Amino acid sequence: MAKGERKRALRGRAGRMKGGRGSGRASSGQVRLWGRHPVEAALMNPARSHSKLWATREGIESLDGELPENFPVEYAEVTDLARMVARDAPHQGLVLECAPLEDVHLDEAIAGSDGPLVILDQVTDPHNVGAILRSAAAFGAAALVTQDRHAPPESGVLAKSASGALETVPWVRVVNLARTMDEMADAGYWRIGLDGEAEANLASALPVGRVALVLGAEGEGMRQNIAAHCDALARLPIGNAIESLNVSNAAAIALYAVATREASQ
Amino acid sequence: MAKGERKRALRGRAGRMKGGRGSGRASSGQVRLWGRHPVEAALMNPARSHSKLWATREGIESLDGELPENFPVEYAEVTDLARMVARDAPHQGLVLECAPLEDVHLDEAIAGSDGPLVILDQVTDPHNVGAILRSAAAFGAAALVTQDRHAPPESGVLAKSASGALETVPWVRVVNLARTMDEMADAGYWRIGLDGEAEANLASALPVGRVALVLGAEGEGMRQNIAAHCDALARLPIGNAIESLNVSNAAAIALYAVATREASQ
Repeated sequence: MAKGERKRALRGRAGRMKGGRGSGRASSGQVRLWGRHPVEAALMNPARSHSKLWATREGIESLDGELPENFPVEYAEVTDLARMVARDAPHQGLVLECAPLEDVHLDEAIAGSDGPLVILDQVTDPHNVGAILRSAAAFGAAALVTQDRHAPPESGVLAKSASGALETVPWVRVVNLARTMDEMADAGYWRIGLDGEAEANLASALPVGRVALVLGAEGEGMRQNIAAHCDALARLPIGNAIESLNVSNAAAIALYAVATREASQ
Repeated sequence: MAKGERKRALRGRAGRMKGGRGSGRASSGQVRLWGRHPVEAALMNPARSHSKLWATREGIESLDGELPENFPVEYAEVTDLARMVARDAPHQGLVLECAPLEDVHLDEAIAGSDGPLVILDQVTDPHNVGAILRSAAAFGAAALVTQDRHAPPESGVLAKSASGALETVPWVRVVNLARTMDEMADAGYWRIGLDGEAEANLASALPVGRVALVLGAEGEGMRQNIAAHCDALARLPIGNAIESLNVSNAAAIALYAVATREASQ
C-alpha cells in the first residue's frame, strides 16, 4: 500500500479515543510501546501481534511505513497519550498496544546469522538493555541472550531506548545461562567475557571466527559461574580515572571491536 | 584523615535534617548531586565548593574518600532525601548541595593533556552527556567541549550518568563553537566529525597526532557550519538495520578507536 493510501485508510478507520485512559498500563499480558521509531518498527514487524494504535494526527503523519490493513487506530490528544505511558515518556504522538514477542531459541537465531552474540548477565536497567539492542542491530549481532530471572521484560522504556531494534534483533531468553553458553561452545562460538580485571585486551583476545560477548552488571560484573563458562576474559583499554564504563557503552565498543577485527589483524 | 576518624568527625557534626525539604530543587545558583559515585567524586574535588551534605547513616558508611574537615552534614531519612532529588532518582542515601564548577578554558584543558577532545554539537540529553563524560574519563580525554546555548547545565541527573567524571573531565563551555574549533586547529588538533553519510570509516580517518572528535545530536547530526569546521568527516562501520547509534555509544566507540589506533596501524 502506498503511503498516501495507507494514510487515507487510517483516517477512514480512526475514531475518537475511548479506552485505556488514565491507567498508564497496558491490558493484561500486553505491552505498550511509544515513540516514532519503536512504534514504526513494531508495526512493520510481521511477528508482532498488535491490538491497537492510539495516535495524534501528527503522530500518524510522522509514520513512514506500511500499516496492516484494517488496523485499529484511534485519534487521541497529546495529553491522553501522556496518561497512557510512563511519566514524561516522549511518546511523539504514538502509543501502540501489542502482544510481547514470541520466544526465540538460540538455534533459530544463530542459523540465520554469523554475527556475534551478546550475552548479558544480570543487566537489568531497561535503558541499558534497549541501547544494547540498538547497537546489536547496528553491528549485525545474531542475537541478544539473557537469563529469564535477571533481565528486564519487554517494555515501552526498553523499546524506546532500542529505537526499533527490539523488533529486529532476536532476543533469546533462557532459564539457565551457563547451559546455553555450553551450547554456544558446541556451535563453534568463542565466548569472551568483558572483565575490567582481565589481563588481555579485547582486541588481542578476539579470534577470527564466531564470537559471543559476555557482559555483566556494572559494578558487580559477571557472576563467577558465568565467567567460568567463558573461553577468555578480556578488558577494554581504559585508564583508572573511572571504575568502569556504562554497560551499554562497553557493549557498543565490544561490538565495534568485533566488526573491525579483520582490519586490525 | 583515616576513614574511621573521618566517620567519627562526621557523626560528631551531624544533626537532624532541617532544611531543603519538599522542594526537590537546590538553593539558587546551587547544584544538587546524588548517588555514591557523583557525591564521593565531588567531595574529593578540590575545585568544588560545597554547601552541605544530607545523608543516611548507610550513605555515610558507603563513602570511600576524605571529607573536608568540619564539613556540614545532616543525617536524614531515605524519604527525606527522595523529596530533595529528581523523581525516582537513585540517591543511595547521599545528597550534596554545591556550587557549579568554575569555567574551564580550552587552553588550560589542552595544556595538561594530549588526550582527545570531545565536541558535542546540540547534544542536550543529560543522560547522554553524562555517559559521554564517563567514557571521556575512561579513555583519558583532555576535555568535553560544548556550546553554551545548546548543552545541558550541570545537574544531578547528568552527574549520576557521569558516575564521578563530571569532577575529573574538564568541561569547556563556549559561546561560539566554530571559533573554538578554529583555535583547536591552531593548536594542532585534527578535527574529525562523525557523520553517518560520510564515505571514510573512522579507523582509516584517524591521524597519528592530536584529535578532536565532533558529534552532533541523534537524528539531526552536526549543524552544517560545524561540519564545515571539521578537517575530515567519518562514519562508524554500522549496517543499515538501524538509522544511528545512541550518541553516547557512538562517542564511546570513537574514543576507543582513538585509544587503539596505534595498534591497528
